[in-house]
Amino acid sequence: MVGIDEIRNAATRIAPYIHRTPVLTCRTLDERVGGTVFFKCENLQKVGAFKMRGAANAVFSLDDATAARGVATHSSGNHAQALARAAALRGVPATIVMPRTAPAVKKRAVAGYGARIVECEPTLAAREATLDEVVQRTGAAFIHPYDDERIIAGQGTAALELLDEVPRLDVVMAPVGGGGLLSGTALTVAALAPGARTIAAEPAGADDAARSMAAGEIIPSMDPDTVADGLLTSLGTRNFPIIREHVAAIWTVADEAIITAMKLTWERMKIVIEPSSAVCFAAAMEHRDELEGCRIGIILSGGNVDLDRLPWQEKR
Amino acid sequence: MVGIDEIRNAATRIAPYIHRTPVLTCRTLDERVGGTVFFKCENLQKVGAFKMRGAANAVFSLDDATAARGVATHSSGNHAQALARAAALRGVPATIVMPRTAPAVKKRAVAGYGARIVECEPTLAAREATLDEVVQRTGAAFIHPYDDERIIAGQGTAALELLDEVPRLDVVMAPVGGGGLLSGTALTVAALAPGARTIAAEPAGADDAARSMAAGEIIPSMDPDTVADGLLTSLGTRNFPIIREHVAAIWTVADEAIITAMKLTWERMKIVIEPSSAVCFAAAMEHRDELEGCRIGIILSGGNVDLDRLPWQEKR
Repeated sequence: MVGIDEIRNAATRIAPYIHRTPVLTCRTLDERVGGTVFFKCENLQKVGAFKMRGAANAVFSLDDATAARGVATHSSGNHAQALARAAALRGVPATIVMPRTAPAVKKRAVAGYGARIVECEPTLAAREATLDEVVQRTGAAFIHPYDDERIIAGQGTAALELLDEVPRLDVVMAPVGGGGLLSGTALTVAALAPGARTIAAEPAGADDAARSMAAGEIIPSMDPDTVADGLLTSLGTRNFPIIREHVAAIWTVADEAIITAMKLTWERMKIVIEPSSAVCFAAAMEHRDELEGCRIGIILSGGNVDLDRLPWQEKR
Repeated sequence: MVGIDEIRNAATRIAPYIHRTPVLTCRTLDERVGGTVFFKCENLQKVGAFKMRGAANAVFSLDDATAARGVATHSSGNHAQALARAAALRGVPATIVMPRTAPAVKKRAVAGYGARIVECEPTLAAREATLDEVVQRTGAAFIHPYDDERIIAGQGTAALELLDEVPRLDVVMAPVGGGGLLSGTALTVAALAPGARTIAAEPAGADDAARSMAAGEIIPSMDPDTVADGLLTSLGTRNFPIIREHVAAIWTVADEAIITAMKLTWERMKIVIEPSSAVCFAAAMEHRDELEGCRIGIILSGGNVDLDRLPWQEKR
């Protein structure tokens, strides 16, 4: 079981490889929520996302013999870049299985970090089969994007830094996709700030976590449709029990509100965040009655965006 | 004469009203310059620009009787917003003379900070005449955007924080328009890091500072044409002698390179900077032979951008 000790160990292990990201505040954004918001800027993390924390923790947890055979995963998102970078830092090979339909910019980024890309058909079955084949052939260690205790512990270190820097938070918010960041965050908050509530946010078009919480069991994400493309996946089996125990609420929010929150954050905070990062702030604005006067920590998950295709400029 | 004591006093005076902005680094951007670059993020400053430092210093330097009559300036840029905000913080009126052709978004921002806007024809003569009329009628204190010792001292506090946080810099870079930021930066560096060189950068399409340095006298900016709209003005009479004494070089750079540097900064550093902020990094990339192995501080001046009109999307 992953707990606060594993999260503290992860923080020590990954410290040489990550940025201690700044916590930013903005008066205008506070006014929209009616409380004081402390943004933990994981968009300013290495590879542009909190995923670097979990990936670094997983890769640097491996014993030398295992590490030497390399690591592998299937991901078209930030975990792919993070694992590629972490492997490069350890000096071991990384193989990333990506759907052939993944954006060229993402493939370039992964290749730029020195990983080998193996393309597959854009289905979950094809991803898993291709990954199995890679693992069998190379002996690489499979590092799941979220359903992995080393990943959960690594992602929990963002909240560890946030709580260390900002006292007396009433609420800590994180977005939820597979639940790696959320479960790590919830464990950290429960251990170190037991008076604070962990609240998650997710897109209405990918609301499997809210439905899973309501049902008391994992409801897989079916045909998710949202601009927040980092939050499409279903909850992991290791993540769900932690979330069920330690997360006070999961708020859902429409894509339009996500895009508005994203643009407002760029405009007033002067930072580049991806749509998945804007979901918490969008939800906080809609729940301002509940947040009035609160001190709220929000983990901004990442900033990897195609600057030639911004969502407020797209015909949707 | 403004010197390091005035800059230190300014830092103390304005501390309650400004952000101590983070210093960010990025491996990818380092590689483009061949050195290690420490970006002082004044785009994350209040009102989105370093201008808040000088404006706060000027406004909070006034004695109560003078302050009560208010402050005034002519500006359509970041100084207007900064002065409006600083006056609001002190609880005194601000009047901003703006050309009637100024973008609506800038007028809204200034009005949003509670200032009164007086419109004028878009000529320097009309600006000055309108401002004179305001000052005569209200008794407001005119706070020049850059040709003012209180402003110079305030702007110098960004470099003060940078040098405090980052030891052993070889070079400190700032963009130059009127010279407020550059002169304050150069004074701070000369006093506290005498082994470091202050180097300025400006757009090739507004290269009056480089020409002034070469000529040994102020050459006014005539018909400047550049995407870096914060750097159009001519050097101030109080700024030029400081720059002449303490600035080692002024590098000019084409708009295309500025836009490339701006986009790269957004993409890899995940921060929103305005074109004027990208000029130093653009110049640093072009001068990498001279910067190889150096530790370089770059002051990112601001992040006020129209997100619906990004320069890499415009037909130019």
